[in-house]
Amino acid sequence: MGEALLSEFATEIFVPVCAVIGIAFSLVQWVLVSRVKLTSERHASGSNKNGYGDSLIEEEEGLNDHNVVTKCAEIQNAISEGATSFLFTEYQYVGVFMIGFAILIFLFLGSVEGFSTKSQPCTYDKENICKPALGTALFSTISFLLGAITSVLSGFLGMKIATYANARTTLEARKGVGKAFIVAFRSGAVMGFLLAANGLLVLYVAINLFKLYYGDDWEGLFEAITGYGLGGSSMALFGRVGGGIYTKAADVGADLVGKVERNIPEDDPRNPAVIADNVGDNVGDIAGMGSDLFGSYAESSCAALVVASISSFGVNHDFTAMLYPLLISSVGILVCLITTLFATDFFEINGVNEIEPALKKQLIISTVIMTVGIAFVTWIGVPSSFTIYNFGDQKVVKNWQLFLCVGVGLWAGLIIGFVTEYYTINAYSPVQDVADSCRTGAATNVIFGLALGYKSVIIPIFAIAISIFVSFSFAAMYGIAVAALGMLSTIATGLAIDAYGPISDNAGGIAEMAGMSHRIRERTDALDAAGNTTAAIGKGFAIGSAALVSLALFGAFVSRAAITTVDVLTPKVFIGLIVGAMLPYWFSAMTMKSVGSAALKMVEEVRRQFNTIPGLMEGHAKPDYATCVKISTDASIKEMIPPGALVMLTPLIVGIFFGVETLAGVLAGALVSGVQIAISASNTGGAWDNAKKYIEAGASEHARTLGPKGSDPHKAAVIGDTVGDPLKDTSGPSLNILIKLMAVESLVFAPFFATHGGLLFKIF
Amino acid sequence: MGEALLSEFATEIFVPVCAVIGIAFSLVQWVLVSRVKLTSERHASGSNKNGYGDSLIEEEEGLNDHNVVTKCAEIQNAISEGATSFLFTEYQYVGVFMIGFAILIFLFLGSVEGFSTKSQPCTYDKENICKPALGTALFSTISFLLGAITSVLSGFLGMKIATYANARTTLEARKGVGKAFIVAFRSGAVMGFLLAANGLLVLYVAINLFKLYYGDDWEGLFEAITGYGLGGSSMALFGRVGGGIYTKAADVGADLVGKVERNIPEDDPRNPAVIADNVGDNVGDIAGMGSDLFGSYAESSCAALVVASISSFGVNHDFTAMLYPLLISSVGILVCLITTLFATDFFEINGVNEIEPALKKQLIISTVIMTVGIAFVTWIGVPSSFTIYNFGDQKVVKNWQLFLCVGVGLWAGLIIGFVTEYYTINAYSPVQDVADSCRTGAATNVIFGLALGYKSVIIPIFAIAISIFVSFSFAAMYGIAVAALGMLSTIATGLAIDAYGPISDNAGGIAEMAGMSHRIRERTDALDAAGNTTAAIGKGFAIGSAALVSLALFGAFVSRAAITTVDVLTPKVFIGLIVGAMLPYWFSAMTMKSVGSAALKMVEEVRRQFNTIPGLMEGHAKPDYATCVKISTDASIKEMIPPGALVMLTPLIVGIFFGVETLAGVLAGALVSGVQIAISASNTGGAWDNAKKYIEAGASEHARTLGPKGSDPHKAAVIGDTVGDPLKDTSGPSLNILIKLMAVESLVFAPFFATHGGLLFKIF
Repeated sequence: MGEALLSEFATEIFVPVCAVIGIAFSLVQWVLVSRVKLTSERHASGSNKNGYGDSLIEEEEGLNDHNVVTKCAEIQNAISEGATSFLFTEYQYVGVFMIGFAILIFLFLGSVEGFSTKSQPCTYDKENICKPALGTALFSTISFLLGAITSVLSGFLGMKIATYANARTTLEARKGVGKAFIVAFRSGAVMGFLLAANGLLVLYVAINLFKLYYGDDWEGLFEAITGYGLGGSSMALFGRVGGGIYTKAADVGADLVGKVERNIPEDDPRNPAVIADNVGDNVGDIAGMGSDLFGSYAESSCAALVVASISSFGVNHDFTAMLYPLLISSVGILVCLITTLFATDFFEINGVNEIEPALKKQLIISTVIMTVGIAFVTWIGVPSSFTIYNFGDQKVVKNWQLFLCVGVGLWAGLIIGFVTEYYTINAYSPVQDVADSCRTGAATNVIFGLALGYKSVIIPIFAIAISIFVSFSFAAMYGIAVAALGMLSTIATGLAIDAYGPISDNAGGIAEMAGMSHRIRERTDALDAAGNTTAAIGKGFAIGSAALVSLALFGAFVSRAAITTVDVLTPKVFIGLIVGAMLPYWFSAMTMKSVGSAALKMVEEVRRQFNTIPGLMEGHAKPDYATCVKISTDASIKEMIPPGALVMLTPLIVGIFFGVETLAGVLAGALVSGVQIAISASNTGGAWDNAKKYIEAGASEHARTLGPKGSDPHKAAVIGDTVGDPLKDTSGPSLNILIKLMAVESLVFAPFFATHGGLLFKIF
Repeated sequence: MGEALLSEFATEIFVPVCAVIGIAFSLVQWVLVSRVKLTSERHASGSNKNGYGDSLIEEEEGLNDHNVVTKCAEIQNAISEGATSFLFTEYQYVGVFMIGFAILIFLFLGSVEGFSTKSQPCTYDKENICKPALGTALFSTISFLLGAITSVLSGFLGMKIATYANARTTLEARKGVGKAFIVAFRSGAVMGFLLAANGLLVLYVAINLFKLYYGDDWEGLFEAITGYGLGGSSMALFGRVGGGIYTKAADVGADLVGKVERNIPEDDPRNPAVIADNVGDNVGDIAGMGSDLFGSYAESSCAALVVASISSFGVNHDFTAMLYPLLISSVGILVCLITTLFATDFFEINGVNEIEPALKKQLIISTVIMTVGIAFVTWIGVPSSFTIYNFGDQKVVKNWQLFLCVGVGLWAGLIIGFVTEYYTINAYSPVQDVADSCRTGAATNVIFGLALGYKSVIIPIFAIAISIFVSFSFAAMYGIAVAALGMLSTIATGLAIDAYGPISDNAGGIAEMAGMSHRIRERTDALDAAGNTTAAIGKGFAIGSAALVSLALFGAFVSRAAITTVDVLTPKVFIGLIVGAMLPYWFSAMTMKSVGSAALKMVEEVRRQFNTIPGLMEGHAKPDYATCVKISTDASIKEMIPPGALVMLTPLIVGIFFGVETLAGVLAGALVSGVQIAISASNTGGAWDNAKKYIEAGASEHARTLGPKGSDPHKAAVIGDTVGDPLKDTSGPSLNILIKLMAVESLVFAPFFATHGGLLFKIF
């Protein structure tokens, strides 16, 4: 079998160094962004780097206008305060949830061996002695808390930098679109690198600290580490679902009164919900997406580690090979660092048309370099041949096969990204057809949009299926887990691109609210339009990786629950499968109605302010932004409880009453059904959004026959866009959480279910 | 083990006698309907039975108006001609398809043993000698053709009586709503009984004739009989998918120009597409639903028979127990006959409010009586204890367990029906909430409607899951098959109720076109509204039974393909599962776009006629109905080819290239995912339709705040209704065909796939 080329010592150095480089890089980006001053001193002193110290090229009116800068700073403060207030309210609930769930984990896992403090023979390697279940219960609880705190911290910092950057992007837009792009992109990179590096570092430290207790009992050690995934993922529930409800409640609420009833433009400062809407972009798209992807990252690492711990890596105590998942992520940080320089330093953006290609190039460059990185790390990180636990027996795997597993995941992610782009960008026929269908009204628009979403599922599913087949065939469930890690290895770049979107969106909003000129708004709109497409790509990515991750977790769960087959031809499994396939529908029904109810509350408040604050419509009086922020905050947290409970309770109820086989069926059913709805919902929504933009922009002969703004086809397109909002930003992406969280929860509680579960069948 | 109480001889008498009673009963109903004269002799001579010979109570103007009668007769003729023309065009394609597919079946199945004419040892009972595969290939082909022809014949006769009855219902409406109800219901019953009895009789005769060749080789005999299910089901592809496209293309096309552009009412005789629209109701809802349910009936019978043939019934040659599925259907005919008398003879309908309860009572009465019938037939028809083949071994089953299997299916059907009613009828809060959401526009209407559909999936899925668990646990796949038969045992009543809907709908159309008074139209509208609800219930039923049937077929396929486990934890199966779960989305995307394209062609033709025929809008000139009928016919047949090909080719491609394990995964995935979309699509559509009707009717305080017709909320409701049309009448119900047809095709070709399939894995 042999050992990995890289020594244990080198691994212990390499991983944290990469993590620290990532953190340092993100701090550098932060410093560069902070050079754009939000005070009215016009000529920033300091270095000449990247043109931030250049004396401003006064190409635009308002550049020297102190008022504009002050206004921007004010608006930014309001957004930042709103976001912070949401987060702190959320954290109160998160805190209660975390403590409650931590106790639950400890009690359930502790009870597996009746809270005995005696060491026991290991589950898989019966000849060795492992630490007591009580120890694993304690350390699972600790790692759960660690995962949760890391996720919360990353989300918080991401939000801080995003709200720190939006007004700076607006101000830079006065100098040109290229400058503004760099500020927005750098800020996104702060978020991306911070999250990737923090996640890696905490996991690395946790493993090394836990080792002090566990010693050679790696089975127990990595069982306890799975709590990290659960912690990260359960915070994603708050981020994605709560954030998703927040952002769309504010958005739909602001639009229904502002655009429809009062006929004032989007982001108009007179609209009381406008700050809540801007806060929502940060809450939903930055904190939500960040926690979702962090959850995926933590879960796929944990799934890989737990399978590896009972494979030859763990049995032979080959530490380097054991940490292979962390090595991939470490190399990923370096690759993304190089990739980022392509966007900010190696090339420059001079025109509006160059934004989208620049962002797309990021994906391609990172994928290509990462392929080399994976080959390298696989060569030095794992032995040329080893065995992997495969539901009862050990499967021999070669290192080149493992390389293919990671690689197929990485490239499948890129393919999913491009397919998503094809179906949601208005340069291609799918969106144009949807726009065209607006001629015959909103009904045909909705029909064509739904059909587009359904159709857009085909290729991503084939890409996922092929990745699964390749990685599953080569390296069983370990293969799936590392394929997911492959897809997520460029997470820093992915998140940078993704966070870039809402920052630009906010920048546009600030320009509008600060009363800046039409040309500035055009520039920020161009930045935002590119961000829409990358947001869709990001969602495709998130869903694809969620599918692989939850399959990997499913496999790890099945291994830990000591099931060797999940046979559809048994009633227990089949009813699980069909009920599991139903859960995404139930969950989506809840999240969609949540948005509706929350938006309704917002509508009432906005109407109330317009009716009771004298001079508001005329612009003499200021609206009460804070109340709207509070309404969105409260409503989103209240409304996320039912869907959250569905996700958290289903594995517990099924596991306790029906047992592990039925639970395995539920997980498989939810996975194969949920991934379809998630993809179709987010693409349908994206396509409607861009079909509307296509008509509004009127950039082609065809588009002009459908426009202008306010024409009947445009009105039909607006209806489609509004329907699509909760689909693409709430119910669709939330399904990622459904399929992942149920799987990781099942994994963590697997020993408990295997020992005490299936009550109903035991009774009858 | 023992024998059944009922002797073989008694069984041979009982089954055909019940079938003949069913046919006779349907002929009696036909004769009763035909007493309503469509010529202008006012006083029909003859008996006084059921008031048909009563001298007319002249309570309505126009009763003695010869013109009205002549006009009704004319319109009826046009509809009847249109329907016949569609069917004959369809039959040309059906004929080619049938011949081609029959040849394929013969070649594929004949090749299993290289077209050898030598007898072989049986597959399951190795000690016996079975007929050569070539014989089974031949008889499978014959039974395929028999199934197809029976389906076509039943559909044809159903359409004939429906188009025969619609004008008669209109004319009876002059005498009162009760009389009209009886005509419409009787006509529905003709269809229901004819289909149930024909299906049973042909199957019975086929089994007895095939026995002459097969003798004691029951394994081969019932393998060949599965072709009957495939034949029935493949005709349902044409009926449901082709018919579904036809009816919605005509409906949407007629509405988009008539209601929206020209502002003329629905069913206005000036609209050139009006006849096509009425033809569509018959084509889609009568022939389509009939062929769908006939397919389910034939398939579940075949699935039960093929499993029984390798269980103790078949091994011991216990003919009565073997024919247990046919015994259930026989008793079902008698039970439905009694049930029908409750609607037509035992009670009388005096007011509009009594229609819906009367139809609902039909479902309850038939279910209650049938429960007794099942207990009886299980007591006399099967031994008190026997064994059932269960993926490799034999499982002991008691007769009371089998009773529970059938019973749980029967009652699950009723529950699904009631849940569907709850979510789609405007008397309850779900539809009222959707109507209320129209206040804030079409977008919220669409969001709430989609959420309603998603939510409506929950209880039906639990009902299906419980039926599956009970019947699967008690009697393995045989249990599932008889549970499906239990759900379908009251098919005659179900179809009667279902066919009643489009007949009433047409009756209303004819009243409008013949220029009859407002009061007549009100009565037919009341009949129609009740029909809408029962149509939704019928769809719920069809989907529920499709789920059980396809699971039964899946089990039979797995048994015949000699697979003993379908393990989700193998890559081959898992990729099948996830791709299978994607197929319903692909298929729905196709059918939804098909409706769009076909409707667009209709729109162009209707516009052309309005623009080029002088005096059409003024009512001086007659439109060219025939061209519109032809357009719908041609478009529907052309547009059904891609989705049809997807359904027919998938099992062949997967089976040949990936083999039986992957195919098993595909079938399971398509089943668990498809049933959810089918239920949600048809309930969403039904709810939108009734939300619109709720606003239009304005029957409550709340409804009146949303109306009247033409108000903004009403316009929003119309958009929802239009979106719902293809969902509820085309793409939703078509999914039944997808999941059933793929399963039965896999079953028929199982020996071929098991022998020659999985090429791709064999090569690599």
